[in-house]
Amino acid sequence: MANTVMKVEGMTCGHCVSAVEKAVSDAGASGKVDLAGKKVTVEYDEAKVTIEAVKAAIEDQGYDVV
Amino acid sequence: MANTVMKVEGMTCGHCVSAVEKAVSDAGASGKVDLAGKKVTVEYDEAKVTIEAVKAAIEDQGYDVV
Repeated sequence: MANTVMKVEGMTCGHCVSAVEKAVSDAGASGKVDLAGKKVTVEYDEAKVTIEAVKAAIEDQGYDVV
Repeated sequence: MANTVMKVEGMTCGHCVSAVEKAVSDAGASGKVDLAGKKVTVEYDEAKVTIEAVKAAIEDQGYDVV
């Protein structure tokens, strides 16, 4: 398993936290949002999921991975 | 039908807009959120719905009607 921390802009409330964590989950990884810190910690299996796919899933929800 | 405009604090994103409009709808009225203006325009039938019930529904979602 690999861990990476992404900086994500645009998350403003609990609904955003849920939307981002669900997007990461739907992409096959596990995400934990730090709303105040504008960060998402992603844990994923490198054999099964690419970090690019996780980023794309978050961006599809309207947030910017920077 | 009556119309009233409420000032609502705490709405930050499109998810909040949806949550507030759904709360108003579930209370039996019709709501339109102005996110930038922090306002909710509520249209309701005074014979069927009280504005207090609409306010309570919005506050139940975690927003402040001021």
